Amino acid sequence: MHKKAALLLAPGFEEAEALIVVDILRRLKVEVDMLACQPSLDLTGYWGISVRADAPLEACAEALYDAVILPGGPQGARNLGANPAVLEFIRRQQAAQGWICSICSAGAHVLAANGLLQGRQYVCSGDAYKLYADGEYRDQPIVEDGRFLTGKGLGYAFEFALAIGVRLKGPEIVRELAGHIYLTPEIVNIAVGSVPDQRD
Amino acid sequence: MHKKAALLLAPGFEEAEALIVVDILRRLKVEVDMLACQPSLDLTGYWGISVRADAPLEACAEALYDAVILPGGPQGARNLGANPAVLEFIRRQQAAQGWICSICSAGAHVLAANGLLQGRQYVCSGDAYKLYADGEYRDQPIVEDGRFLTGKGLGYAFEFALAIGVRLKGPEIVRELAGHIYLTPEIVNIAVGSVPDQRD
Repeated sequence: MHKKAALLLAPGFEEAEALIVVDILRRLKVEVDMLACQPSLDLTGYWGISVRADAPLEACAEALYDAVILPGGPQGARNLGANPAVLEFIRRQQAAQGWICSICSAGAHVLAANGLLQGRQYVCSGDAYKLYADGEYRDQPIVEDGRFLTGKGLGYAFEFALAIGVRLKGPEIVRELAGHIYLTPEIVNIAVGSVPDQRD
Repeated sequence: MHKKAALLLAPGFEEAEALIVVDILRRLKVEVDMLACQPSLDLTGYWGISVRADAPLEACAEALYDAVILPGGPQGARNLGANPAVLEFIRRQQAAQGWICSICSAGAHVLAANGLLQGRQYVCSGDAYKLYADGEYRDQPIVEDGRFLTGKGLGYAFEFALAIGVRLKGPEIVRELAGHIYLTPEIVNIAVGSVPDQRD
């Protein structure tokens, strides 16, 4: 089952959050497009690291993905959340039942800030959830509600990446990969065992 | 106490291993130079991600660092290990008592392959240690022996990064950071509590 994911990058993105997810998903044979949400393909992250995206967002605006991934980094997340093309892209994926996956401050500054959660449960880093009325904050490493999968922050980036992998490719291949790269059973259990919301 | 580290990058480097370490060390206010061990500053990693280095290795060949970091990725590590300028750089840092820190296959393909360990204990990924006579393999997440600090692989990249941070900046700031970014106590304990070798 061929699966595709889009990672949205804006200046100030959290480098490790972004690259851990791409790394893990590509290891799971998910096709990942790193999309630049700015004119240039070269983006500088929160910690000054310059990474080259695969394509500009506009080039893939009509494509549908199995998952959209929104990394944190406070300014990176705010940049994504303030970009109308990003919001249109996310809404398009939502309408097609794609997974919307955010980590760290992106849950607040992108999703809640723009009313995209429509009351769904989510997690983000720190107190950023207090800034926005949308969404119901849950203090857990990984929160799943409907087609939203959200992670708390950098320390749970492996769990977040594996949790996306489980939704796209199933738990078996994820457990196999985790063993191969020495991720501990605790990490795998959070990813595989993250409990779906009971309201649906 | 101002501390400096050099991350050595060659084509095929493991992206997440490399960037997790840079991310964590910069958060700990360690100055990190990402050095390109090839003519161009733009390097493509194991999973196809292109990252821009800060400077070419030659530009910093005379500088001394508190730590040298060697990321894995099988081809990236082999490329480092086959580069005479890299080996000269590492030997220069060793002579000045700098930490030599490798993760994943770099412990084997860079350090053991070139006799740099001189019999010291180390860990690397998989069976790569069997290829080389130098070094004494220990199957642990993090192994410290003398001024060598080695990590097993990607799944222990946070532990590895924090363990370097502990040696350069002490355990207090590392524990504080770990809490801030939601790294679990288990991860911190491996990093802070990695037991020094008893032979020295």
